[in-house]
Order: sequence, then C-alpha cells, then structure tokens
Amino acid sequence: MEVKDITNRDQDFAKWYTDVCKKADLVDYSSVKGSMIIRPLGYAIWEEMVHVLDQKFKETGHENVQMPMFIPESLLNVEKEHVEGFAPEVAWVTYGGKEKLEERMCVRPTSEVLFCEHYKKIIHSYRDLPLLYNQWCTIVRWEKTTRPFLRSREILWQEGHTMHATKEEAQAETLQMLNIYKNFQEEYLAMPVITGKKSEKEKFAGAEETYTIEAMMYDGYALQNGTSHYFGQHFAKAFGIEFVNKDNKLETPYQTSWGCTTRMIGGLIMTHSDNNGLVLPPKIAPWKVIIIPIGEVDEPLKYLEQQLKENHITYKVDNSNKTPGFKFAEAEVKGYPIRIELGARDLKENKVTLVRRDTLEKITVAVAKVLPKVKELLEVIQQDMFNRAKERRDQMIYEVKDYEELKKTAATKPGFIKINWCGSEECENKIKDDTTMKTRCLIENEAVDGACVVCGRPAFTKVYIGKQY
Amino acid sequence: MEVKDITNRDQDFAKWYTDVCKKADLVDYSSVKGSMIIRPLGYAIWEEMVHVLDQKFKETGHENVQMPMFIPESLLNVEKEHVEGFAPEVAWVTYGGKEKLEERMCVRPTSEVLFCEHYKKIIHSYRDLPLLYNQWCTIVRWEKTTRPFLRSREILWQEGHTMHATKEEAQAETLQMLNIYKNFQEEYLAMPVITGKKSEKEKFAGAEETYTIEAMMYDGYALQNGTSHYFGQHFAKAFGIEFVNKDNKLETPYQTSWGCTTRMIGGLIMTHSDNNGLVLPPKIAPWKVIIIPIGEVDEPLKYLEQQLKENHITYKVDNSNKTPGFKFAEAEVKGYPIRIELGARDLKENKVTLVRRDTLEKITVAVAKVLPKVKELLEVIQQDMFNRAKERRDQMIYEVKDYEELKKTAATKPGFIKINWCGSEECENKIKDDTTMKTRCLIENEAVDGACVVCGRPAFTKVYIGKQY
Repeated sequence: MEVKDITNRDQDFAKWYTDVCKKADLVDYSSVKGSMIIRPLGYAIWEEMVHVLDQKFKETGHENVQMPMFIPESLLNVEKEHVEGFAPEVAWVTYGGKEKLEERMCVRPTSEVLFCEHYKKIIHSYRDLPLLYNQWCTIVRWEKTTRPFLRSREILWQEGHTMHATKEEAQAETLQMLNIYKNFQEEYLAMPVITGKKSEKEKFAGAEETYTIEAMMYDGYALQNGTSHYFGQHFAKAFGIEFVNKDNKLETPYQTSWGCTTRMIGGLIMTHSDNNGLVLPPKIAPWKVIIIPIGEVDEPLKYLEQQLKENHITYKVDNSNKTPGFKFAEAEVKGYPIRIELGARDLKENKVTLVRRDTLEKITVAVAKVLPKVKELLEVIQQDMFNRAKERRDQMIYEVKDYEELKKTAATKPGFIKINWCGSEECENKIKDDTTMKTRCLIENEAVDGACVVCGRPAFTKVYIGKQY
Repeated sequence: MEVKDITNRDQDFAKWYTDVCKKADLVDYSSVKGSMIIRPLGYAIWEEMVHVLDQKFKETGHENVQMPMFIPESLLNVEKEHVEGFAPEVAWVTYGGKEKLEERMCVRPTSEVLFCEHYKKIIHSYRDLPLLYNQWCTIVRWEKTTRPFLRSREILWQEGHTMHATKEEAQAETLQMLNIYKNFQEEYLAMPVITGKKSEKEKFAGAEETYTIEAMMYDGYALQNGTSHYFGQHFAKAFGIEFVNKDNKLETPYQTSWGCTTRMIGGLIMTHSDNNGLVLPPKIAPWKVIIIPIGEVDEPLKYLEQQLKENHITYKVDNSNKTPGFKFAEAEVKGYPIRIELGARDLKENKVTLVRRDTLEKITVAVAKVLPKVKELLEVIQQDMFNRAKERRDQMIYEVKDYEELKKTAATKPGFIKINWCGSEECENKIKDDTTMKTRCLIENEAVDGACVVCGRPAFTKVYIGKQY
C-alpha cells in the first residue's frame, strides 16, 4: 500500500474525501449496493460519539428503548404527511422465508409511528409525562446515489422521541436537544455550527417546526448534521394519544423528536482532514497518541505507556516491522492527534520528538516533559482546530445586496450567503433553480431591515442559503 | 395497576414468565407481529450486558465493526450448508421504494457471508492475521412462535468473526470466547452454566464444531445461552480467502464465530425471578438500590444519595405520591437488589430498614451502618443467588442406567439427564421422538464406561440431554 496516495483536496474535493475514507481504513464497500462496511477505526469514532451523546441524553433524563425495526404498511400510513415524505424511499419486506406476508412491512426509515403506537398504550395520566425516550439503531432509506457516511441506504443513528403535557415543555425540549447537539459538535468535534429553524419547505415530514444544525465543510458546502423537531399535537392526534390532566380532563400531549447520525463522521472529515489523510480532534479520537518506537527502546516505552495509562490517555504503539517513514505516513493517514517518535538516538540526548497531526509541527522535549506536553497539546490542538474551522467558515459567509450579486456570489464563491427573505416558497424555489442553493436555516436573533433579495417585497427574516451535501 | 398480579411460578411457568416480563416493564408488544418493544428497564439490563462483554472482547484484542444489514441472495448462496440452514427463516426485501429490486436481499440472520466477503478483500498476508472482529447489531429470523427475549423475529446480539493463520489458534479462540461467555454468565448473571461441544446434528449450519453455553431454567428446561463455533476452512474455501504465509506460500486461513443475545435476559428471569417479580443479580442490575423515603427525610436522603454516588453505587429514589406499600411491591416487581426504606420514624431511633430482594429479608441497621451494609449485601446477594441456582440445577441433573429409566425420568422429573451415548444421530433422534429431549452438549472431561443407554452399543461419550427453550 502506498500510504499517501490521496487526491489533492483543492483539486478534487469529492475524490479526496473518498480517498481519505478508504486510506484511513474508515469504510469499505461490499456487494450490498448503497451500504457501507464501517471498519474498526470508523466504528471506534462512532463509539466515542455514542458514548458522549448517550451520557448527555441520560443526564437530561432520557431513557433508551428499542422498538421493532419493521413498520407494517398500515401503521406507516396513519400520518399522511409523514407517509408521503418517507414511502418513496423505504425498503419493503414482502416474504418471510417462503411465505408471502399478508401485509408488507418496511424497514424503519425513522420510528415516529412505532413510538406513537407504544405511547398510545402507555400514556394515561399527566403522571406518565414527560416521557423521554431515545433509541440507538440502524435505519434504512433507499437512496439512489450514496457516499460513505454522508448518504447511505443504511444509517446508524439515534432518534429521541418525547411526549409532554404542555406545548412550552415540548418546545423547550426541542431547543434543549438542539443545544446538546450544538455543544457536542463544537466542543468534541471542533466543528463550528449554525443552528436555527428550517423553512416550511425544508422541514421534516409531519413536523410543526424543524431546527437544524448546519456545518460548513472545507469546500463551502453545507452539511445538515442533526435535527430537532417540534411536532405539536400532529402525530398524537393522528394516533389518538390522550392523557387525563390534573383537572381530570382529557388532553392531547405535545411531541418532539431529534436525531443525529454517522453523517457526523463525514462532517468531521470534511472539516478537518487534509492531503495527508484524517485529522481527528483529540476529544473524539479513539486513540489520542500513537507511539512509534525506533531502535531499542523497551524500557522508556514501558515507562511512557504506564504514564499514559495512569493519566487515561488512550494510545497505540506501532510495533510492526515497517520502516519509520512508512509508520509516520500511516499515523498521519489515520489521524492520531499526536505522534510520539521514541528514538534510541534521541533518548541518549534526553530528547523525544512529538508531532502534532493538525499542523504537522515537530516538537522536541526532554523525556521528563513528554507527559505534560502531551496533555497540553491535546487541549491546544482541540482549540486550534475549532478556531481554524471557525475562522474559515466565517470568511465564507457572504452578505449580498441584490439578486444579481447573489447569483454571482453563488457561482463564484463557495460558502453560505446571508440574505433578507420574504419567507415565500416561490423565492426559495427561484434561488434553488438559479443557484442550486437551498435555505439552510432562519436567523432568529438578527433584526431584519429591507426587502427580500429575490422579490423585493418586505423581508420577514434573514436566512442562510447554501449548497448542500 | 395491581402490582402483584403475577401468575404463580409453580402453577404455570410460561404464564408466570410472560407476566414478569410485562409487569416489570421489560417489554411490550406492538402491531409488528413477532417483534417486541424493549422498554427502558429491559434495555438498561441489555446495556449493562453489552458494557461488560464489550470490554472483555476489547481486552482480548477484538475490534468492533459494522457490516451491512442486508445480504443479496447470491451472497447468501455461496456456502451451501449455511444457506440451507438459514434460507427458510429469513425476511426478504424485494422493493426499494416503488422499484422492484433486481436481486432480492434478506435481512441478515447472521453475518458470516458478509464478513467472508470483506475478509477476501482485506486478508493478503500472514501479517494481516489474526483478524479479530465483533459486531453489535440486530438480526432477523422469521420465527413462527415467539416469546419475549427467548424467541423473537428480531434479536439484538453480538457476533464475533475471526480469522487465523493456524487451526490451533482458531480453536483456542473458539474456546477462549466460550470461556468469556461462561465466566460472564456465572460471575455477572449468577447463572451456573454447562459448556461443551454440540452433537453433529445440533451444530451450526456450516460449522465444524459448535460449543454451547447451556443454562438450566427454574422449570428444568435448557436455555442455549451463547455459542462459539470453529469453522475450520469451510467458509474460507467457499469464498476463496487466502493469505501468503511466512514461507511465501498461499494458505487458507481458519475461522471462528461466536455470539450471544438478548436471550440472556430471558435466562436471567427464568433462573432467578419469583412470584413477586423480577430478581436481578447486583452485578447486572442497572440500579443496585431503590430508596423509598417515608415522611420528611430530606436531609438524611441527601446524605445517603451522596454516599451512594461517592461509592459509585447506582440507585433510584421513588419520590412518587403512591403509598409506601405500593412502592414496596413495585420495587419488588422491578427487581432492585436492595430496597432502602428511609422512614422518618425509624430515623428518630437511628434505624434504617434494608430489604434484600432475593430473600425478602428485612435488615435493620444503624444510620452510620447503611453504606457498609449495602456494600456487603451486594456481594452476599450476588454469591447467594449463584449458589442457590447452582444447587437447584445440580439437584436436577440425573443419571440413568437404562432406556426405560431414561424415559421415566424424562416424563416425571424436570431437568437434564446425563447418559452414555454411542454418538449416532439415530439414537439422538429416538430420544427426541420418545421424550422431546435433545442432546445439550458432550461431556468431555469424564471417562466413559459402558454402553449407549439407547442402543447398547459401546458408548463414545457422555452427553447431557434435556428439553429446551
């Protein structure tokens, strides 16, 4: 294997992305069209994400459950908008063994209807509320064109589904989960994100309001990296879910759902990685350090390993019989935040070389300073990666004064454009037809002045638009 | 809800089992026939199991991956015995959205063929071996009759798949994983288990040797609670997997697979639970303690919670406005190992009442002694539960001198029977026809003396037989 055989990121971003996914051993393909194999490193990154998010969900009172993976067609049909949104892209099971099923079932594309059917059985009184459930599972959407992590027929994800006695409580939950996603992505994935409400056109099939997490990739494209929906009483009414309130009257509860997926791994790659391969933020890297022993270094290696273990810093040692140069390249491809070159010759001079993956900077320290330097670097790298990503993103957000400038900017400058918008789907469609850009999310905390940049009518809001994955 | 409305275990074991699953809120049903909903307590138990096993797998060098959930029919067909074993019980996906698939795909009933296809791509040299993979996922087998946790169309499980350069190494792996299962079930689930090789007739479709974990339930029925297979080069040859050995020659690697499922939750229930509901061994209970405050006890409650937290003892507090009697019953149904009745009146006399779930024994201790007593009890309960289960099981294993006694024992005494067996499938079938008992596993470390208890020919081995779930 030629480790560094990765397409240049600035020449062909799409090919570069696939190269990184393959060369870093994150994924592989199989004869199952549209699905991917997530290999050990890719899955270990997902496990880190699951671990942190699951803890945050539990801290905020959520419980995990597991629903069936199949949905009978009649159950999917209960909520009209929902079925229209999902029916075209589901996989249908029609046979069990040799027997044709009386009713075909799809593999869940999302589980709202399954949760609602269950809620109907277990919600009776205000004492049963709120009901705060989450599920980690695989869903299926029959996509035509797929790309590793970004768009796949099978998706690993979590889906939260909650029921509340009041509208206010449900809306607060929707925003709470949006913030958990935002904080997780900024703090752990070092990905700056924009959050806000989706337009009517772009919201989830069946939702009253959809909030989104929008990250900007290195090439200026948007990645929707999580959503949090407020359903109101929409599904609850369709399913006849009611509870007896404190005044002994029947009421319909208010609902939310929220989810994020392995797509975040794609976002991670397209935000931070480079021409040498994967770059992982320390806080989400399964192994923070790779040690490459050069020459006879058994004793110092043992000592270093012990120090790392005692400080709960995960690491790997490359003991293979490849050349140091090859090992360095491979350590870079796989994105270990810090590489420690533990060389016999260096050690004689009381030196150890550390290499930052994010900047490839070489740092030579005295043996006694290795551990404190590693600790310091893990924090510095995490912060620097976020800062660099944020700076780049902020430089790629443009404001335009009229529609001509909008079209020109869309055609020449990768990134997001911030515009005044009247709120009409007509203008949204026009932008899409002319530029392939869609609205990303409404900007809620900025005063709106002036006219819609498309039609000239009074603007109702500011909104980000951008091309998307 | 009437908490204690559970069928008597000695009157109708099957109904008792379903009652415990339902009343302890472990599962619920839905309109998805044959699948179950795993509710928060049931799923939390599974999470504990996953957590411990996953750590043991990783400590022994295994890496997690995620394969596709679908298998194209042609891929399933590659290994003949395997497809014959599984094709009758798979769910077939035939449509993606509105389009009929060119080739139908089943939802994985197990993933040998997917792993093999991947191995073929990634194994080239002896340096790539051993390859030690594991996958946590859901599988589907189209069962006709289902029971919560024991037999379900959808099963949560893990499946380990490994490839080795030598036969010896692969066989050692098979036994290593069998032992990990055994130790886990005995140490954490407090379930004594018998391990051994399956007969030719009972082994896995495609395996050379299948080792099994056999537990005996309260009613004397066997539960196969995990299996570890040695495949030899069977699949590897069918898939054309080869590697270059140290002498630069092409060789075929040796393979294993091993799995255990949510069925272990069923085993846990049928081993330990009683007429008051669930009984959980402390080491697998998601919450070790339930605190029931009675009267004004805010300060001592806060103090107790702090003590438990500091000692990493998970707990719940029942702060609902139900009566203490109702709360006690509910705490019993849900199987918390220790119930702490924190009563204002008791506290005035410097007393706190602890109740063991396994024996329902009440223990009154001074306030200062609560924490040490809890710690002590958690260990004592775990050990006592194992000892009781083992004693019961050992008393329900019978030896018989002839076939008449075998038939009489099988008809009158629940449990396992240990017999001399010639090893022929003919005798195995006769036993099954006459008693519904199947061979559980071969007994390898006992000398065989005498004749096959069925046909009178020389015995080749001792074997356990029993009725099974």
